[in-house]
Amino acid sequence: MRIRKAEIADAQAIVTIILPTIRDGATYSLDPDLSEADALAYWMGPDKETFVAEDEGEVVGTYYIRPNQGGGGRHVCNCGYMTSSAAVGRGVASRMCEHSLDHARERRFRAMQFNFVVSTNEGAIRLWQRMGFDVVGRLPDAFQHPSRGFVDALVMFQTL
Amino acid sequence: MRIRKAEIADAQAIVTIILPTIRDGATYSLDPDLSEADALAYWMGPDKETFVAEDEGEVVGTYYIRPNQGGGGRHVCNCGYMTSSAAVGRGVASRMCEHSLDHARERRFRAMQFNFVVSTNEGAIRLWQRMGFDVVGRLPDAFQHPSRGFVDALVMFQTL
Repeated sequence: MRIRKAEIADAQAIVTIILPTIRDGATYSLDPDLSEADALAYWMGPDKETFVAEDEGEVVGTYYIRPNQGGGGRHVCNCGYMTSSAAVGRGVASRMCEHSLDHARERRFRAMQFNFVVSTNEGAIRLWQRMGFDVVGRLPDAFQHPSRGFVDALVMFQTL
Repeated sequence: MRIRKAEIADAQAIVTIILPTIRDGATYSLDPDLSEADALAYWMGPDKETFVAEDEGEVVGTYYIRPNQGGGGRHVCNCGYMTSSAAVGRGVASRMCEHSLDHARERRFRAMQFNFVVSTNEGAIRLWQRMGFDVVGRLPDAFQHPSRGFVDALVMFQTL
């Protein structure tokens, strides 16, 4: 697996990965009805660096990294990761997370924060904990899950 | 004191209030060097409803309210409040916070979240606690204070 900077030529592959997760509405606090263009503009926005994970020449995942706050908070970064449904179970998310932690250190970020990890997304929470993140906050009923109703969201954090 | 929707005619008064706090860089995680136009665009952005507090016809404070997340997270709102330095101590922030909580309930938000309360901003933390907010998260060293170095930031939350 190879992780590299996303290029404009990756736009269609990125949309194909992120749109089903956005439409599903169970893990990201994004409008499930976002247009393709708005979804892409969000994922590749000017505040972000966006990467893709390639396996045998095929894009199987994508992530972004950005400063989580401005001013006195700009030394903490934030990332979002999505894996192609066809590639789930191959360790793509964990490879992307490792890459993002290395990249964050290179960029001199001092910490990484996930602002809104849906508490029902248990596989992700276990993975982030394995990758070194702690739960530093719990937002009660902050997410309306499409099938499970109001559930908590977690704030996760790792000092680099 | 009267609190009303901000209008374009309030732009100069709003900038006069928010710019010194932004320049100071001790309480908001915004770039201290934001231009006047960018500061105003942030405070009156299209995702926000912006209000002003008037005392005897003079704008003494301003706040915004917005959904804190999209999709399944859009029932939680977020606010930011700033008071004119000349009016500090007159209860402007607490009046604006009460107004915002009422407005949030009217708008059918189910909770209000502050994402990033700098831990050295002790007066604000006490005020938010008096207004019903709990500390639900602590972000270690997430804010570089201009004189006190790296300090924690708090996540505060109130169910409505």
